[in-house]
Amino acid sequence: MIITLTTDFGLTDPFVGIMKGVILEIAPGVQIVDITHEVPSYDINEGAFMLDSAWRYFPVGTIHVVVVDPGVGSARRPIATSVNGHTFVAPDNGVLSWVFRSGAAVTHHITNASWFNPVVSKTFHGRDVFAPVAAHLARGDALDAVGPVISDYRQLPLPEVRFLPGNRLAGTVLRIDRFGNIITNLQRKHLAGSFRIRTGTAEVRRVASNYTEGPSGEVFAIEGSTGYIELSINQGSAAERFGVRCGSEIEVETGGANQ
Amino acid sequence: MIITLTTDFGLTDPFVGIMKGVILEIAPGVQIVDITHEVPSYDINEGAFMLDSAWRYFPVGTIHVVVVDPGVGSARRPIATSVNGHTFVAPDNGVLSWVFRSGAAVTHHITNASWFNPVVSKTFHGRDVFAPVAAHLARGDALDAVGPVISDYRQLPLPEVRFLPGNRLAGTVLRIDRFGNIITNLQRKHLAGSFRIRTGTAEVRRVASNYTEGPSGEVFAIEGSTGYIELSINQGSAAERFGVRCGSEIEVETGGANQ
Amino acid sequence: MIITLTTDFGLTDPFVGIMKGVILEIAPGVQIVDITHEVPSYDINEGAFMLDSAWRYFPVGTIHVVVVDPGVGSARRPIATSVNGHTFVAPDNGVLSWVFRSGAAVTHHITNASWFNPVVSKTFHGRDVFAPVAAHLARGDALDAVGPVISDYRQLPLPEVRFLPGNRLAGTVLRIDRFGNIITNLQRKHLAGSFRIRTGTAEVRRVASNYTEGPSGEVFAIEGSTGYIELSINQGSAAERFGVRCGSEIEVETGGANQ
Repeated sequence: MIITLTTDFGLTDPFVGIMKGVILEIAPGVQIVDITHEVPSYDINEGAFMLDSAWRYFPVGTIHVVVVDPGVGSARRPIATSVNGHTFVAPDNGVLSWVFRSGAAVTHHITNASWFNPVVSKTFHGRDVFAPVAAHLARGDALDAVGPVISDYRQLPLPEVRFLPGNRLAGTVLRIDRFGNIITNLQRKHLAGSFRIRTGTAEVRRVASNYTEGPSGEVFAIEGSTGYIELSINQGSAAERFGVRCGSEIEVETGGANQ
Repeated sequence: MIITLTTDFGLTDPFVGIMKGVILEIAPGVQIVDITHEVPSYDINEGAFMLDSAWRYFPVGTIHVVVVDPGVGSARRPIATSVNGHTFVAPDNGVLSWVFRSGAAVTHHITNASWFNPVVSKTFHGRDVFAPVAAHLARGDALDAVGPVISDYRQLPLPEVRFLPGNRLAGTVLRIDRFGNIITNLQRKHLAGSFRIRTGTAEVRRVASNYTEGPSGEVFAIEGSTGYIELSINQGSAAERFGVRCGSEIEVETGGANQ
Repeated sequence: MIITLTTDFGLTDPFVGIMKGVILEIAPGVQIVDITHEVPSYDINEGAFMLDSAWRYFPVGTIHVVVVDPGVGSARRPIATSVNGHTFVAPDNGVLSWVFRSGAAVTHHITNASWFNPVVSKTFHGRDVFAPVAAHLARGDALDAVGPVISDYRQLPLPEVRFLPGNRLAGTVLRIDRFGNIITNLQRKHLAGSFRIRTGTAEVRRVASNYTEGPSGEVFAIEGSTGYIELSINQGSAAERFGVRCGSEIEVETGGANQ
């Protein structure tokens, strides 16, 4: 059985190690995999997208724990959701919004305190609620036992490509990766004909088939590994060149033939 | 069987991966969990506290390897200690001081060189001494075989809350976490009545029950996940606001009713 | 069965977690160990050396996946190599150059697309090619099935110590570690007699036997854990003091008796 962890805890503090100890105390032998612990602090939107890039590559039956939880200790609910054979344990703050879009979800409000740590702190539900609940599920306890099914769980509006007058499209930057690649919510079909993306001094007119084919310093579009269009420079940072960040709008002028 | 690792090696160099290879060569199938590798370089005090926040959340029987070891290659002894059913393998430099406070310890000087790597370097005892000793213990070799019991192992003075004239207390900053929360050695009982903590432009008068209840920008006290009082700002860095760091003194003026 | 991962992906993006999901989908229960994900972006030379510091500490039979791959999506070949009982899966760009030096290699061009992810992206062969191929090998599929044996795989020239007129040697900085230690390609034999290394304001005349024996602030040489000479300061950064970086030349004046 596999449990994955996605948090904004970083790896400097012992928080992640503590969660793993809690899991292994309850569910010995479970395999724990880090997706990332470097979600920007409190950034539910970016955490939601990072999780969505990863979870579908794990085997059916995997339990995914997501702790990006600025509301820890407040009235926000903890939830557990089953989608496409995967289970997600997270705060009900929208961090599962991308997951919900990928299939029919059965979502439970986590109320079964007998699965929690004996003392639940006000500040670390990763340790006291989410890790032990995931561990109970990993050792075979039923999802139904976690608490009642709910339908009013929180879903954030996800950025959609907008079609503007004058053969223009507006996309959104979903995130910037380590290499400075700009991951947008545009898809290949949006750049089917001729197009131009301009921001400041950079201009993109071409969808490349790999990182190395263009001249050095050229900014190009490429279909990235998430299925979305990315703006990139061969061995350079497109994000710095464009001056954009997560959530920025990307405007595309199209040749007119794009749907 | 579980082995945890706590070091100041960071994750950029391959040091941690190498220790894991050594462990798995000797004890195939053992489960290795990182507590943290971001102890500040050579900082025995902070490493000792970080370890103490984490080890008790692992199952009894876990072996904890701690390598914060500025004296590597010198005469400082390697030790192995059993406390409350957990085993600790570390240099004898005080990094287990918090652990020793939590229960009766049986401490051995590690002298059994037949468990070490065939060649012991002068600079990397994590690889050549601590990892292989932990792996031998994980596969069931007896702790007694590691070397003789000693009683003169090193213990650092741990910061205590001091009671000052004029209804004042002096606490100490144990560490700053990723979110800028200031973890002190104060406990809830020290802030039982009215109180005031002042440093520079920040003032704290209230123990909050969670991060989100206060007005934006207010600095408040909260009982943190380690059981100690932390000074926090909702989605901001209290450490920056207070201008304190690890080891700084925190003075509390109390209403007079505190014990 | 163990699979190690060495990449320049960092731990902020979910790339590494995704590779682990792919591996565990194909080879349930395999043990995955990170060597490092902080190879400097696109730096094949440094990645090659970091890998070489680590792989020999893992058990025979381990499969090592190396993804430092600036040419991803281009015509560069993926390869799988068997050396000294270990298997390496990597792009054919020289990142295995140090490995090739350590023993006779049988190298295959990876062409068996039935082992790849159903859709192979242009940008993430760690996920789509290298991880699934390693997972197939880990579950027992034959290395011969991966593709034909080749002999024209890429090998980078590795830096050699050069002997210069006037009893001088020229070494090279292989890398700088987290502590600021300068790892050179010099060996103990090169500093057998009296010697002097000078750069800017720093001078080294002595091989120390451990980090702590010298006076504070002294730069000294020490035989490091890789078997190479390192230049170090006790609890300080020799790299900052010397002003060198990876690839810099280190000149040694010897007493004349060195070979």
